[in-house]
Amino acid sequence: MAELNVRAISKGMKSALKDEVKQLVAGGNRAPHLAAVMVGNNPASKAYVSNKVKTCDELGIGSSLYHFDESITHDELVDVIHRLNKDNGVDGFILQLPLPDHLDSQSLLMEIDPLKDVDGFHPANFGKMALGLPAFLPATPFGIVLLIEYLGLDLSGKKVAVLGRSDIVGTPISILLSRKAPYGNATVTLLHSRSKNIREELLAADVIVAAIGIPSFVKEDMVKSGVILFDVGINRIEDPSAKSGSRLVGDADFNAIKDKAAWITPVPGGIGLMTIISLIKNTIQAYKNNHKG
Amino acid sequence: MAELNVRAISKGMKSALKDEVKQLVAGGNRAPHLAAVMVGNNPASKAYVSNKVKTCDELGIGSSLYHFDESITHDELVDVIHRLNKDNGVDGFILQLPLPDHLDSQSLLMEIDPLKDVDGFHPANFGKMALGLPAFLPATPFGIVLLIEYLGLDLSGKKVAVLGRSDIVGTPISILLSRKAPYGNATVTLLHSRSKNIREELLAADVIVAAIGIPSFVKEDMVKSGVILFDVGINRIEDPSAKSGSRLVGDADFNAIKDKAAWITPVPGGIGLMTIISLIKNTIQAYKNNHKG
Repeated sequence: MAELNVRAISKGMKSALKDEVKQLVAGGNRAPHLAAVMVGNNPASKAYVSNKVKTCDELGIGSSLYHFDESITHDELVDVIHRLNKDNGVDGFILQLPLPDHLDSQSLLMEIDPLKDVDGFHPANFGKMALGLPAFLPATPFGIVLLIEYLGLDLSGKKVAVLGRSDIVGTPISILLSRKAPYGNATVTLLHSRSKNIREELLAADVIVAAIGIPSFVKEDMVKSGVILFDVGINRIEDPSAKSGSRLVGDADFNAIKDKAAWITPVPGGIGLMTIISLIKNTIQAYKNNHKG
Repeated sequence: MAELNVRAISKGMKSALKDEVKQLVAGGNRAPHLAAVMVGNNPASKAYVSNKVKTCDELGIGSSLYHFDESITHDELVDVIHRLNKDNGVDGFILQLPLPDHLDSQSLLMEIDPLKDVDGFHPANFGKMALGLPAFLPATPFGIVLLIEYLGLDLSGKKVAVLGRSDIVGTPISILLSRKAPYGNATVTLLHSRSKNIREELLAADVIVAAIGIPSFVKEDMVKSGVILFDVGINRIEDPSAKSGSRLVGDADFNAIKDKAAWITPVPGGIGLMTIISLIKNTIQAYKNNHKG
């Protein structure tokens, strides 16, 4: 059984973060503070945001939720962002995506002060990440890096296939794992919808990051024995046997692959748990940056 | 003979740029203006800078050279950069690298206003490039993109091997050719000093970008028949038969490969000629951005 117990790993990391926050506030300092901006009532977004707030509470981190009706305008939202940029009591904040159609996410993300952009979505942070400068890494790639470090994996010279070229997962993790860094130095191939021979490319890989958003896309006959597979997909599929009529699955056929892989992350209870750790780590880093001077 | 006649291509592009500048200044507008900041007397740097100035002259673009003694301090150079950031008569400027050892290139590059960073080295530009937003692309990757567009190459689904992971060539071109873009959509593998089986990786590639800085590293038996090879290397090697005792060679064994390749760029007279086109294109774009409002 090669299932990576991400639940236990993330629990241990949370506990360490809780201790770190305790030390930061010892002596009367205020706690780190994360704000979340949310628009509308997308149920998945509500669940994500409330989970972030709950985790902040657990760890002794302050949080605030700015929840707006769908009718909010672009300019009003820009004002909210500018106020948070200037608010000395807020170390970092996130704009929960997706936004309603009348709002342009990209131009709104550009309004966030890169020093408070704990989601790591601002181009200034993305560029620093790609160039190996200190930066807030986007949550999912950062979560994978944390797992690699935790497991002590040496990817130097190993073949990595990244499946999916999104701006928030595939592209940044392909850059990070290529870089000259303790978690990097891998030979990375970035696969996507236009790639040919995906099966052969995956079969040649020592490590696979599956982030393509297609339920159970990666089959058992597409991976080599001993592969390490980070499954980023979170896909809801129908399942008449489930109480709710549906269940979550990843981008890999977990049950078929788990005995062939050296390690594979499950869905749910996998990479998703690491993204919240990343966000908290970025928030604590933003707090430290604020309190340096 | 599969040598790509980059000299002719770049000549045609220069001619088109000259016409474009003529139209921009018609009606009495000032010409676009590029400034170059240079420190010390590195002969290669002097040659590069004087070539840039000469090309500006040819095309009707204004230029100015700020040449400082090696003794200039970090703070003095920051002042120069800040003055150029504010100078409305300068559309874009470059800081010629390398700098003397007592100056930190990275922190100085960060002082350049991204809107005037026509070398595309600022993290804000790098991040925008990686995210597919309008940005100044770094000169060499931009030059390769321009060649791909000029040749009408369709890389969609093609296998590309990028050899070398530098911040100014290998990493950015690997990102660009992966992106969903007319010049992109390729399946890119980024190879570097820690990669294993480089020969096999190169043999599988339809397109190779060689940017590793090792003279004639890519041999004839490392490429497939019909390969397209962009040689970015500019290496000086001893050659007793040459008047100067040395000559320039690329990262690929040009003479051995040229009959096997579909296309290969020579050195000298190859990608190097495209980088100046890129810089001029970025300068003209900066000028247009300045004159929009």
